[in-house]
Formats: sequence, structure tokens, C-alpha cells
Amino acid sequence: MEEMIVFGHKSPDTDTICSAIVMSDLQKRLGKNVKAVRLGELNKETEFALNYLNVEKPELVEELAEGQQVILVDHNEFAQSAKNIEKAKIKMVVDHHRICDFQTAEPLYYRAEPVGCTSTVLFKMYKENGLEVDKTIAGLMLSAIISDTLLLKSPTKTEEDEKAVKELAEIAGLDYETYGLEMLKAGTDLSDFSAEELIGLDCKECALNDKKAKVAQVNTADIAEMMTRKAEIEAAMNKDIEENNLDLFVFAITDIINSNSQAIVLGKNTEIFEKGFGKKLEENTAFLPGVVSRKKQILPVLQENA
Amino acid sequence: MEEMIVFGHKSPDTDTICSAIVMSDLQKRLGKNVKAVRLGELNKETEFALNYLNVEKPELVEELAEGQQVILVDHNEFAQSAKNIEKAKIKMVVDHHRICDFQTAEPLYYRAEPVGCTSTVLFKMYKENGLEVDKTIAGLMLSAIISDTLLLKSPTKTEEDEKAVKELAEIAGLDYETYGLEMLKAGTDLSDFSAEELIGLDCKECALNDKKAKVAQVNTADIAEMMTRKAEIEAAMNKDIEENNLDLFVFAITDIINSNSQAIVLGKNTEIFEKGFGKKLEENTAFLPGVVSRKKQILPVLQENA
Repeated sequence: MEEMIVFGHKSPDTDTICSAIVMSDLQKRLGKNVKAVRLGELNKETEFALNYLNVEKPELVEELAEGQQVILVDHNEFAQSAKNIEKAKIKMVVDHHRICDFQTAEPLYYRAEPVGCTSTVLFKMYKENGLEVDKTIAGLMLSAIISDTLLLKSPTKTEEDEKAVKELAEIAGLDYETYGLEMLKAGTDLSDFSAEELIGLDCKECALNDKKAKVAQVNTADIAEMMTRKAEIEAAMNKDIEENNLDLFVFAITDIINSNSQAIVLGKNTEIFEKGFGKKLEENTAFLPGVVSRKKQILPVLQENA
Repeated sequence: MEEMIVFGHKSPDTDTICSAIVMSDLQKRLGKNVKAVRLGELNKETEFALNYLNVEKPELVEELAEGQQVILVDHNEFAQSAKNIEKAKIKMVVDHHRICDFQTAEPLYYRAEPVGCTSTVLFKMYKENGLEVDKTIAGLMLSAIISDTLLLKSPTKTEEDEKAVKELAEIAGLDYETYGLEMLKAGTDLSDFSAEELIGLDCKECALNDKKAKVAQVNTADIAEMMTRKAEIEAAMNKDIEENNLDLFVFAITDIINSNSQAIVLGKNTEIFEKGFGKKLEENTAFLPGVVSRKKQILPVLQENA
């Protein structure tokens, strides 16, 4: 049987890595020959989860061979996928994002649901196939959902995610609040990164009408500590604005403990941000109480006020 | 609760109509406010099925209002969908085709499987949700699968389709072979149609490298009867070739009883067909034993030999 490889998006996060490993387990148990791989280096949060659960990290893949059979998890847009994805045979997709910049030549298995995390969908698929989930696989799915929903505090969280977290914690034998906080905190150790790296760790470019914007986000347990690096972060943002002709750059430092964000905002169109959030920037920054989700709480506000 | 409408593709066939009605039943039973509609007139096969099962045909919809919430079944390509589909909010898709010319602004529920019919996927969804299927709904799904798989004889048929047909026939209380043949035969009454209409009933345009081709197909219980109209069909094909600058036009008359096709082939590049099928055309026609599926047995042959 021809081997399929399964992977998540570039700049992998915990959902992408864990869901790739989980999907390979699920498909193997359904009789397929599937191997999990990754498209980039792990972040510290994911490293923490794999170490804790004693799971090896998947092999790194740089680009795909023509005709390689692949399964995508946690993404579908070709721009976020492996090099040469357009030459591969996409057999399956399991995801929780919109569909965009994606097409296939053949019918395929495609499963997406508007929930907080890919692993929430995978957990349903185990159940639908009448398969029990073992302790380690449960731990991986739990880690993915905790990561994507910031321990169920993000507005992207649905009832299904919450239910899955509780069932999976039971199977994994973990107190999900204690484990989850430890895992999220592990991901907030950003001391190794230069300011240039920090603003690129999780950065999305988006068009706001005719304006070009970037919105980057980092998670932290201590906004004040991150703000001690404000000057060098601003310098890196201004360099990016010049080099890429950006009209707006929003860098959100998100406090995962208290569910707030501090934004550093630069560019010649900062009025979009000020209007959207009803805040005057002071020294290029503003505090956004209750804001944790770029997808649900930052991007739509900018889009509506551009 | 805001009403959603569910519909299949333009030029509706039995799967498109039945699956729209079935999906509205499934979603209503899951608590949603959903109405089935159709984008065009029913063919005679579908009319037969709805009459037999005593089900009203869905309301006709010409175009969508901006922001209308919709569910697509049996298609995803915008070119095959409702007018203004790009202004609608696509909440769900259930399908069995490749994904192409499709995108959304928001995450959605998307379920596709590489099986012979949309209703095969819908039947699984009833089971996954622990819902019993009633007699009429079973009859609709049965009709859809019989239609798309030509009574399980098409190479697009999978084991899952076959299993579904047997279970659904049991629930519907129908002998699927007798009922299916009657239904398929009802669809082969094409006497009302002009030659221009015949070649347009189920016609797909496709690029063969730099060549422009069309492959149309009709089902019949009697190839010889259809061939008495060969001269007028050829005239209609030649007119289409001239008007649309086609390099090749293949019209397949498929015998659904014996699972063969007779092809009428015109255009300046008929050698693609002759090379692909290893047949010399005689008076623009050739017999293709065992060929019933355009998707699996005609298009790939032309694509490989263009």
C-alpha cells in the first residue's frame, strides 16, 4: 500500500503537530499506511506537550515529490502548505478554517467543521468509527484544543471543544487546567527570540480595502516583561513596514492568564486601529481588555473600520 | 432562527434534488431552520422518483440575496451554483466531487467523500448523529444513489454506495433492482427534446492541453432509437463547434441496461478520441463496450491522449 504523509501548516503550532500525529494514528487503525511529518521547527509550547506525553516529534519535510499522496490537517490554503503542494495528490483534509486558495483534480475526503480546533473534529472521527482513544493520543488532542482555545478562554471556542476537553482529560488522566496552564506558559518563553523573530513568529498579512496590513501575535504570561523590549520591537516593525510598504502593523501581546492584550501599533494608518477600538494610542500602544483572538476580535474590527 | 436554504447544482439531476430534500430533513431534525430549493427544472428521472415517493418538488430559486445563508449539496464549484453564490454565506457543503473554484470568508462545515453519490455521505451522517431514517427519506437517498451509479454498474460506485443501497432499499421497502430500472428508464424518455437540447442536457466543457473540447452524455435504454436522430444531433454539434471554436465534441449515448456507450465524435481533432480508444470512427461514430462513466472512462482517456 502506497505511503501517505500527513502534515499541518508551515510555522507549526501545537494543533498542527498534534493533529498530524493523531490523524496518522487514526488512519493506521483504519488500515491505511500513513506517516506524520512536519514543515518546520516546533515552538516551545509544542515541545513541552510532546516531552510531557513522551511522543517523538515528526520528521521534517522540506518539499514534496510529484504525485506524493498527502493528508492535510489544520490548514488548506496552498500558501500555508508544503512546497510543491500543487504537484501532490491530496487524498484527505481535516480542518477548522475557511476554504481558500485550495483545489484538487480528484474527489477527496474533506472534513471541516467551524469549531475551535482540528483535534475536536478528529475526536469525533474516532467516535464515528467506533474506535477507542488511547491515553497518549487523548493527551495530544487535549494539548491541541487547549492551545487553540487558550484553555477554553478564546471566543473561537465552541461547546464541542469544551466537551471534548473534558472527555479527553478523563482518558488522558490529566487535570486539564493545571496541565494546560503549564503548557501555555512553556510557550510564552520568548527570551531566545530577536525582535525580528518575535514579530514573525505568528504573523498574518491582510488587505484592508486598499491598505496593506500585518497583524502579529505572541502569547505571554507577563505583558510588562514583554514591554521592556518595546523599543527593539518597534524598530523591527518599522523596518518591516518600510521594506514591505505596509500601511499598518499591529503587534498583539496577549496575556493568556488574564485574557487581555497589549497592542503596539505602527504605520501611517494607525487611525484604523484607533477608530476600530475607540482608543487613542499613547506612545504607539494601547491596552485591549478581553481581547485574545486575532481571528474573531482583531481582524474583523480592522476590516470594518478600514 | 435565520432560515438557510439548501440546493444542488444547476441543471439538477436526481442526486442534486433528492440530496437537497434529504439534507433539509437531516438539519431540521438537528434543530436547524432549513428549506430545500432547486436551481432549475426537474428531469424525467427525478420527476418519476418524486412522484413514486409522493414528495413535492422543491421551490425554484433564480438567484440569491446578499448574505443569504446557504447549504450546498452535490457540488461546490461556483460556476455550477446559484447566481450570486459569491455574495451568500455558505454554512455547509456535503459533496462527492473534487474541490475547485470554491472559497469562503468564514470557517464552515464541509463534508466530502470520494464515493459515488452525495446521498451515500448523507446516510452516514444520519447514522453518526444516531438518527433513524424514515421510509420516504430512505427512498430519496436510494433514488439518488441508483441514479449516480447507474444501478451500481458505474465504475464510480464504491463498496459504501452498494452497502447503502441495500440498507436503504430495506428501509424503503423497495426492490431496488426493479424500482431502479423503472426510474432510470423514465429518465431515458428524451423524445421531447430538440437535438440542441439533447447535446446540452448534461454537457461538460474541458481543456485538453491547448485544445477546447466538450463531452456530452445522455442515458438511454435503446441506443438504436437514439441513433435514428444522428443527422440532427450532428448538425447541432457542428453548430456548437463553430460557435464556440471547439476542437473536439464527443456525444456519448449510454445504454444503461447493458452498460455500453455509442459515441458520436466531431471536430478537427477527432484523432484524440481515435488514439485514446484505439478505434477508427466510421461515419463519425464508434461503439464503446463497457463504457458508462464520463468522469472515469472518457475524460481521462481524452486527457491522456491530447
